[in-house]
Amino acid sequence: MSYATQKLAEEKVFKDPVHRYIHVRDQVIWDLIGAREFQRLRRIKQLGTTYLVFHGAEHSRFNHSLGVYEVVRRIIDDIFTGRPEWDESERLVVLCAALLHDLGHGPFSHSFEHVFDLDHEKFTQAILLGDTEVNAILKRVAPEFPQHVSDVIAKTYGNKQAVSLISSQIDADRMDYLQRDAYFTGVSYGHFDMERILRVMRPREDQVVIKQSGMHAVEDYIMSRYQMYWQVYFHPVSRSAEVILTKALHRAKELSENGYKFAYEPRHFKTFFDRTFSLADYIALDEGIVMTYFQEWVHEEDEILADLCDRFVNRRLFQYIEFDPAKDYRKLSELEQLFKKAGINPAYYLVFDSSSDLPYDFYRPGEEGERVPIHLLMPNDELRELSRSSEIVEAISGKRRTDHKLYFPEDLLKDDTKKKAVKKQILQLLYGQA
Amino acid sequence: MSYATQKLAEEKVFKDPVHRYIHVRDQVIWDLIGAREFQRLRRIKQLGTTYLVFHGAEHSRFNHSLGVYEVVRRIIDDIFTGRPEWDESERLVVLCAALLHDLGHGPFSHSFEHVFDLDHEKFTQAILLGDTEVNAILKRVAPEFPQHVSDVIAKTYGNKQAVSLISSQIDADRMDYLQRDAYFTGVSYGHFDMERILRVMRPREDQVVIKQSGMHAVEDYIMSRYQMYWQVYFHPVSRSAEVILTKALHRAKELSENGYKFAYEPRHFKTFFDRTFSLADYIALDEGIVMTYFQEWVHEEDEILADLCDRFVNRRLFQYIEFDPAKDYRKLSELEQLFKKAGINPAYYLVFDSSSDLPYDFYRPGEEGERVPIHLLMPNDELRELSRSSEIVEAISGKRRTDHKLYFPEDLLKDDTKKKAVKKQILQLLYGQA
Amino acid sequence: MSYATQKLAEEKVFKDPVHRYIHVRDQVIWDLIGAREFQRLRRIKQLGTTYLVFHGAEHSRFNHSLGVYEVVRRIIDDIFTGRPEWDESERLVVLCAALLHDLGHGPFSHSFEHVFDLDHEKFTQAILLGDTEVNAILKRVAPEFPQHVSDVIAKTYGNKQAVSLISSQIDADRMDYLQRDAYFTGVSYGHFDMERILRVMRPREDQVVIKQSGMHAVEDYIMSRYQMYWQVYFHPVSRSAEVILTKALHRAKELSENGYKFAYEPRHFKTFFDRTFSLADYIALDEGIVMTYFQEWVHEEDEILADLCDRFVNRRLFQYIEFDPAKDYRKLSELEQLFKKAGINPAYYLVFDSSSDLPYDFYRPGEEGERVPIHLLMPNDELRELSRSSEIVEAISGKRRTDHKLYFPEDLLKDDTKKKAVKKQILQLLYGQA
Amino acid sequence: MSYATQKLAEEKVFKDPVHRYIHVRDQVIWDLIGAREFQRLRRIKQLGTTYLVFHGAEHSRFNHSLGVYEVVRRIIDDIFTGRPEWDESERLVVLCAALLHDLGHGPFSHSFEHVFDLDHEKFTQAILLGDTEVNAILKRVAPEFPQHVSDVIAKTYGNKQAVSLISSQIDADRMDYLQRDAYFTGVSYGHFDMERILRVMRPREDQVVIKQSGMHAVEDYIMSRYQMYWQVYFHPVSRSAEVILTKALHRAKELSENGYKFAYEPRHFKTFFDRTFSLADYIALDEGIVMTYFQEWVHEEDEILADLCDRFVNRRLFQYIEFDPAKDYRKLSELEQLFKKAGINPAYYLVFDSSSDLPYDFYRPGEEGERVPIHLLMPNDELRELSRSSEIVEAISGKRRTDHKLYFPEDLLKDDTKKKAVKKQILQLLYGQA
Repeated sequence: MSYATQKLAEEKVFKDPVHRYIHVRDQVIWDLIGAREFQRLRRIKQLGTTYLVFHGAEHSRFNHSLGVYEVVRRIIDDIFTGRPEWDESERLVVLCAALLHDLGHGPFSHSFEHVFDLDHEKFTQAILLGDTEVNAILKRVAPEFPQHVSDVIAKTYGNKQAVSLISSQIDADRMDYLQRDAYFTGVSYGHFDMERILRVMRPREDQVVIKQSGMHAVEDYIMSRYQMYWQVYFHPVSRSAEVILTKALHRAKELSENGYKFAYEPRHFKTFFDRTFSLADYIALDEGIVMTYFQEWVHEEDEILADLCDRFVNRRLFQYIEFDPAKDYRKLSELEQLFKKAGINPAYYLVFDSSSDLPYDFYRPGEEGERVPIHLLMPNDELRELSRSSEIVEAISGKRRTDHKLYFPEDLLKDDTKKKAVKKQILQLLYGQA
Repeated sequence: MSYATQKLAEEKVFKDPVHRYIHVRDQVIWDLIGAREFQRLRRIKQLGTTYLVFHGAEHSRFNHSLGVYEVVRRIIDDIFTGRPEWDESERLVVLCAALLHDLGHGPFSHSFEHVFDLDHEKFTQAILLGDTEVNAILKRVAPEFPQHVSDVIAKTYGNKQAVSLISSQIDADRMDYLQRDAYFTGVSYGHFDMERILRVMRPREDQVVIKQSGMHAVEDYIMSRYQMYWQVYFHPVSRSAEVILTKALHRAKELSENGYKFAYEPRHFKTFFDRTFSLADYIALDEGIVMTYFQEWVHEEDEILADLCDRFVNRRLFQYIEFDPAKDYRKLSELEQLFKKAGINPAYYLVFDSSSDLPYDFYRPGEEGERVPIHLLMPNDELRELSRSSEIVEAISGKRRTDHKLYFPEDLLKDDTKKKAVKKQILQLLYGQA
Repeated sequence: MSYATQKLAEEKVFKDPVHRYIHVRDQVIWDLIGAREFQRLRRIKQLGTTYLVFHGAEHSRFNHSLGVYEVVRRIIDDIFTGRPEWDESERLVVLCAALLHDLGHGPFSHSFEHVFDLDHEKFTQAILLGDTEVNAILKRVAPEFPQHVSDVIAKTYGNKQAVSLISSQIDADRMDYLQRDAYFTGVSYGHFDMERILRVMRPREDQVVIKQSGMHAVEDYIMSRYQMYWQVYFHPVSRSAEVILTKALHRAKELSENGYKFAYEPRHFKTFFDRTFSLADYIALDEGIVMTYFQEWVHEEDEILADLCDRFVNRRLFQYIEFDPAKDYRKLSELEQLFKKAGINPAYYLVFDSSSDLPYDFYRPGEEGERVPIHLLMPNDELRELSRSSEIVEAISGKRRTDHKLYFPEDLLKDDTKKKAVKKQILQLLYGQA
Repeated sequence: MSYATQKLAEEKVFKDPVHRYIHVRDQVIWDLIGAREFQRLRRIKQLGTTYLVFHGAEHSRFNHSLGVYEVVRRIIDDIFTGRPEWDESERLVVLCAALLHDLGHGPFSHSFEHVFDLDHEKFTQAILLGDTEVNAILKRVAPEFPQHVSDVIAKTYGNKQAVSLISSQIDADRMDYLQRDAYFTGVSYGHFDMERILRVMRPREDQVVIKQSGMHAVEDYIMSRYQMYWQVYFHPVSRSAEVILTKALHRAKELSENGYKFAYEPRHFKTFFDRTFSLADYIALDEGIVMTYFQEWVHEEDEILADLCDRFVNRRLFQYIEFDPAKDYRKLSELEQLFKKAGINPAYYLVFDSSSDLPYDFYRPGEEGERVPIHLLMPNDELRELSRSSEIVEAISGKRRTDHKLYFPEDLLKDDTKKKAVKKQILQLLYGQA
């Protein structure tokens, strides 16, 4: 028997709070879960800084990755297998892609990638194709197998049904994370009837479609997604933490470039500061390491670095106001001037941040970020784009919503031991005339 | 208005997956939550190594501490307030004790305390009474207030109702952790009707008793506890991880004492190795830091340290067999000899471990670990010890259950590139004649 | 102590699957629950014929009425009490109105009211004000108290906050039934964070408003409502059962008017057939009684009555097709002619039925069914109509959705033992050319 | 294709709140669900009078029967199919037996069977084998098939694995009703990890055994069962309602035998009073019909019948005290004498009632009610009786618990308008010296 088809002597199950159990029968999947690059995902939180607002959100990407695998496994094994439109030989590559799709995420990905100009998707591919335990396992299946898994994740794979299961407007990735993040945060959004959606998914030519009878379950899923974005993922307080984290990393980088002598040397970051890092350097990072540095840097001589690290470690966050960049642009430069006068460096302490989401979109050829729409499979066997059947989805289709905030350290501004007058002026500008 | 009675302008709520919401109205509680020693609990997992078996169990002691606070708050504010047997002036000290009862826990407490001969309860008290942000906040209430909080946690406080709420056979601590650990692991044990139990709790002389009508809910709670101990807390695989962790710390300590030159210096551990640590040294530790060292030590020259760290970080755990120390004592020495012959150091690679629990006990005067029993408040206003009313509780009262396991690295023993014969002999001894 | 303020010696609690516990402290409430007119609600299903589609939906209006009471009680006792805008002397009248608002519902209300031209709201008032146990209890509070309760339910009461709690676009009635009906049917819609909504409700002049921070919870509630309407309440199969029930009652009435001699005399219905019924006659009815007649009437000589009753009792329902009355009007008369030719009475066997819902609306002065909109209480203390803040709500505001179906007995039409040709013609007209 | 193997064109699913979905693929099962004898189960409550205590418990035996079918279907289709020890040709007979095992239940079975000396199990068999729609469907499978289904239910079937799935100490019947009754009542007992138990069930010779790794899940199930019996099924208040119901039926029977002229003739009961009933008479009964009579009989001239019916319909129940028949036997005759003196007929108004349960038992050869024990399948492939492995189960094995109560109308005894002295004496005897 080939490695690709090798089954475990006895099925293994993982107790999972979201899907009850995660079932593993394939030796390949079992081996991948044990690989060190996959175990590393235990040390990277699924929701970055969100745990500073929703204290339950301490779950890792390891959790979520197992979940996505399980959702795809159920779709294939319970729904697709045996249908003529589905090519069963694609099963293993999709399961591997599901399990490994987040492999390249680094610590606090969003901030980290931003500061060091990295891209976690490229790292996912580097781990799949580079000198790693994961690669060794995948190669045992077939020499070209690592590339296939990588292609599914990169959406360049030939079989678009395979791609759709992992990346589309209704894919296993989203279905897992909406439910999982709702479970761990404890919010009441994020519930939808996934079992129903799975039962009405059908492989069909170059996509995965939804039987019309499942339309309302899909509406519910889209609304869940919308609520989770605005209630959890874009929560202004966790964005405050992210802003501080980003600025602290920026400061460390800047100090390093300027030859600052760290009391606690940034050994793990050095190759990122000077962009000489290897894949191994990247894999060696995790959130515990970042936090270790931040805790030490609280004692650095550089006041900005020490303060920002202290803020992040001990959750002393920035305050924020709504801020419309179109309307209030002038105010921003005015504030920057006043911050300087007050002795507070605006490059680190006055931060404009936007979040934006498009809950659903149909196909708009030629537009940026064009998306494959969700298609309903009608009783007469035709396909119909979702927003043409659903009034609720139509109502929000293509409507991008954006939220702008301006972040600042209210505590420093209210500390009136010095520069009292200018600080008062700043506060008036921020909060309006008192 | 005094600090002790100061209320927030608007009640703060934390979304909590177990209790739905955690409510904070007292300024003191709000300030304590923001203290750095309390925020540090976010970096210490509630269940240590259990997440290596139940991947959902990544929640921190911060989570649990808020939960215990909320349970006590509900008992006092919803049930006790206004009853003549309850002294409302005890409210704040109990709330603080509930919130802070786990403050002294270090990273992977069990292993850490064992290797370095520490006691988290003493650290809790040191943090309450020492030079800390928590202490400063408590002192603002009253100079003797930190000591009172410490006494409640240490069970030496005069008002035994206060003590009972935090530490008894049916206290807020247990009620929170059973439910919380069940929620995050996803197991179906751990459910009981806490709302019902809270409603039937009554302050009564020097204890907290349960109205007889709630007896079945209490039975259910005791059974939940029993199941959680054997299904989750004593799970043999998470004990395997703990065994490895303990041995790795032992090795590092031993190496340090023997003057070994670490490639990655154990800066954070040094004062623990030579027992010169300060309170600040202890507070500076957390699980991210321990993991940072372990990941670096995978590359140490010392093979034992490197191997044990690799096992822990990448979840390459020891296997185990049932082992009856009374019956199999001779076998253990035999195995130790054979391990040495095979070139595997038994001090690190052959580990005997026991877990033991007493699900419930009535009062046995003079015996070790004597416990305050649970008393039912009968309709005629008399008290009756629980096991005298409940057949199920009677059946398990005072019955200690113990589980013994012997842990070893099966992978090394099955590696037959060298010492094949002696390893085969070991495996036969461990697993019985093949 | 007056009856109005009399408390039970010990609080009574009802175990409720939706709200966990329902708490009763007021003697008046306790007495009302025991009144025979209230106990009668146990014999009337909350969702009429829906249990024939969702088998779990067997819960009664008794269940729901307790739930609405509990929601109002929590709003008042946990949120409103103590706020200057809230007049605590209104508490009891609102609690009574919440508990009793559905008192006048008859068996399978919708069909029954339609056939006999009744109005359950008038019966609610008749029971409150007439010679009943409920009235006797309310009068003990004060002579004018029954009228006040009736006014709150009829929305004519002076205090509009009181009215709003029971009848508005976000009231306790809806919040209970959405959750309760979701729970008993088992659908995954119907979930929203009621606890959150309750916490942000505020009494304000002549309405109840929602703090802006709760906007997303309200969006979720409106979406839940939308889904429940289309997935559960308007389910075409339960409407099929309702159509049959209505037609069976019609037939019995018509037969009675025509002097038909029933084998099983319609004793309980007679005064409704000839419109001489008393309040006592109405109260005497329930769904068990209706079913008793239907089961007996299966054996009546009149074939139409016997067949319709058999269909309802044994769930042999009509089939249906989408039917656009504007476009297909001509087809309907054609079908009626063909049904007659086929010997199937179209008055009973060809039924057009519409369902229609308006998920949310803002205030449109002068329009039919004008509604009080939901107002958000902004941080600056101004009020803002919900759809002006919520894009999702704006998208569906004022959009009425209607569903038209045509019901018919497919089994009779497919029975080709006689009139085969005309039946084939009918089926072709219904389903399109085969 | 034969009828036995005929599949539906598309799988049908029922939304079920306990098992999420109930799946039907077999034409035979689909036809049985539509049979009128099965639809009749919608009109019989699963828990009889329990809804008068737990208002959510309004669910029917129809609900439960679908649930048992689904549990058996999952065991067979997901776990047993393909295992050599399991004979797949038994599948359909077990599914039918699961679905139909409660077919013979009448209205308020317990009381009804007691008064009229009936046995619902005999009726189940009569419906399976008699002239019914269910029988016609089963006969289409094979002439002997109805008898086989009947044998499985009666436990006389040759294949004991088949019998075990429906009737044993851990069968699909119990697993469904514990969870279902917990769900509808809303109590927190009744939860156990059924999915886990199903996964470890194994067919083995003449029984179904449980892999040892599932032992704790089974312990949890046994504890759930214990709690549900004492918290829900034997609740003293629902037994009060049952006592009244039984006595009312007794009275009606006695009156009928004595030639009493009913204002509302007991047409549906007559053949039961004189024991001339047919199967059709029995099938025609349901709880709506019983309630219809009771509501009418409230107006009967016979005061006892009228009063008992009023008590049942309007929930005016008897009070109760603990009563030890061994110790208090003399008191009972004394009370009977005093009741007579007080003009209250003790045959109807002073009722002794016992409930008794044996939570688990191992095999005790030759003893009454001998039970097949639960066997664990050990890793070495041997079987071991559960209580030999589980300390908790051992602790309660074979321990029968009994509860005795004495019921009486406290309201009549406290009505001091006449016979004041003797009533006072009765109350003193019941409640002890005041």
